[in-house]
Amino acid sequence: MTSDRRFMAMALALGRRGLGKVWPNPAVGCVIVRDGIVVGRGWTQPGGRPHAEPVALAQAGGAARGATVYVTLEPCAHHGKTPPCAEALVAAGVARVVAALRDPDPRVDGGGLARLRAAGIAVETGLMEAEARRANAGFLSRIQCGRPQLTLKLASSFDGRIATATGESQWITGPEARRMVHAQRARHDAVLVGGGTARVDDPSLTVRGLGLARQPTRVIASAPLDLPVDSKLFRELDVAPVWICHGPDAPPDRRERWRNRGARLFEVPTGPDNALDPVAMFQALGGAGLTRVYCEGGGRLAGSVLAAGLVDDLVAFSAGLGLGADGLPGLGALGLTSLDRAPRFVLDRVQQVGPDVMALWRAAGAA
Amino acid sequence: MTSDRRFMAMALALGRRGLGKVWPNPAVGCVIVRDGIVVGRGWTQPGGRPHAEPVALAQAGGAARGATVYVTLEPCAHHGKTPPCAEALVAAGVARVVAALRDPDPRVDGGGLARLRAAGIAVETGLMEAEARRANAGFLSRIQCGRPQLTLKLASSFDGRIATATGESQWITGPEARRMVHAQRARHDAVLVGGGTARVDDPSLTVRGLGLARQPTRVIASAPLDLPVDSKLFRELDVAPVWICHGPDAPPDRRERWRNRGARLFEVPTGPDNALDPVAMFQALGGAGLTRVYCEGGGRLAGSVLAAGLVDDLVAFSAGLGLGADGLPGLGALGLTSLDRAPRFVLDRVQQVGPDVMALWRAAGAA
Repeated sequence: MTSDRRFMAMALALGRRGLGKVWPNPAVGCVIVRDGIVVGRGWTQPGGRPHAEPVALAQAGGAARGATVYVTLEPCAHHGKTPPCAEALVAAGVARVVAALRDPDPRVDGGGLARLRAAGIAVETGLMEAEARRANAGFLSRIQCGRPQLTLKLASSFDGRIATATGESQWITGPEARRMVHAQRARHDAVLVGGGTARVDDPSLTVRGLGLARQPTRVIASAPLDLPVDSKLFRELDVAPVWICHGPDAPPDRRERWRNRGARLFEVPTGPDNALDPVAMFQALGGAGLTRVYCEGGGRLAGSVLAAGLVDDLVAFSAGLGLGADGLPGLGALGLTSLDRAPRFVLDRVQQVGPDVMALWRAAGAA
Repeated sequence: MTSDRRFMAMALALGRRGLGKVWPNPAVGCVIVRDGIVVGRGWTQPGGRPHAEPVALAQAGGAARGATVYVTLEPCAHHGKTPPCAEALVAAGVARVVAALRDPDPRVDGGGLARLRAAGIAVETGLMEAEARRANAGFLSRIQCGRPQLTLKLASSFDGRIATATGESQWITGPEARRMVHAQRARHDAVLVGGGTARVDDPSLTVRGLGLARQPTRVIASAPLDLPVDSKLFRELDVAPVWICHGPDAPPDRRERWRNRGARLFEVPTGPDNALDPVAMFQALGGAGLTRVYCEGGGRLAGSVLAAGLVDDLVAFSAGLGLGADGLPGLGALGLTSLDRAPRFVLDRVQQVGPDVMALWRAAGAA
């Protein structure tokens, strides 16, 4: 591994610390190196600012002069709530900037690199671009497709069931898998479940047991907005934001009750089956700034987002028990007319987690 | 690892070569060591004889005198179609016999060890007993429970489906997984499918592409014996044996037709749903000498053997595609009344096989 690659890998690792905490901004990492020695490290801070570069520059101080800067995404060029990072790098007198990826945000889109070059700084792009594309997938999806990246989690028996015919579902996977789910929630901006799951399981959807200060937003997809007001989500709404996507026919009194409690509501068109249009729902969530969404079912919502081609990553936990065809399926109907229309995924890795198996699949054709 | 362990591990590896080829006998391995040097190696030969010990003794010749013999199962003491192995070891003048496991076959059951001891040979048992129990699981199951060991294979989409709603099923898993299935068939005495699968898929159930001389027996579970006579199984009956388990109401003309073609028939009682009683079926298969059966579905048969607690090993292939709840489930109904009655398995290992995942599960509580 060249030293350029080594420092960029370090910047990527730093950037990942921000995942789930920095939306609508990208989770960028930055390493500043002077004479082969790391003099500054930074990553996008919770809430999305300061950006990675000023954090690293502050740490480097005068050592930034003449240094090389490794950054996982093109430095910004636009005056937002903070001054542009490209200006800060110029002001600090750095000699060389290596950016893994050009920022497709129309407010940047090469402008940051151009500003650096104009100041006489040596600029390179494309180092570990595939890894950077992967690390920034949520932000890139929001900018380029208008919707957040979606991770679908399925946790089922080895035959794909999430409850017995009698409705018993706790617990199918073990405590190690459940703990890993909490860690995965924490690396996403929001956790999403369907209205049926919210009603039946009465989940809190928070990250627990990890000492986390910032909770992901909780999103419920419920066309009729028929969520009970004695639910944990309603009672504990102050713990973390609650967003509800509902259909045009959701009664005004229900909307009013949730809005008064502090929930944010999104009206989303419904399809012929009265279910929320998943593509429209994800456009709404992207428009609200979300970059990474973690969907935990139930089966109907999972089937809906999968059939719509919205699932980027799939996390499948399988437990060592069978529940049989009379059990509740973890994935709802897809209405496939032939095998070659099935949504396809490529295995990223598979491992044992406690007594269970966890397989990570990525959408075929994804970066 | 002590040298005793090392030689026993070698004997176990040799013994495994016989799996699927030696029923109704156990697949035993034998290593003869003189002055730290291996002078003889043997394993149970196809068809079940010669046994491992005479093969190894023949190789060792005079070097067996004063040697140590490592054998994965107690040497036999009974006069069957071959003279007892214990006598052969005594005649060869070996000094010490290390047997991993006592043979529970009532015709042996300590008699082999006693014969050796009576001849002044030092005898030890219990070295790597757990591994030997596992390697001999099929034989032990037949002797102790009267039924063969059962491996259930499921090969499905990641949501546990084996065909689309329209019935398309080829191919869900990749060529690497299918090749591994052939290798797994070859290590079992028989391949078992339900009548529905035999009718719909018209499988040949043979081992292909591995240069194998001896094919596993093909067993079909079909209560009404309504299998088409233009099927591959009927037409290609000379390629490998075909056994059919049918119910008491199977029409005499159907029985006659298959028997005349050369199939072996087993009449098995049926339950209230007119399905074959899986426990009675497996007792019949054990009575006919099978020690290791590889069941490949379909869903109804898989559910039936799983619900009856007959599944010892479970091989679950998962492919990177979703088929949805409207697809055909790989595992049929289990009729569970509560989650704690679900059949449970412990993960043995999980790995990537081509583009697919293969998880090996063992029945919880099994050796």
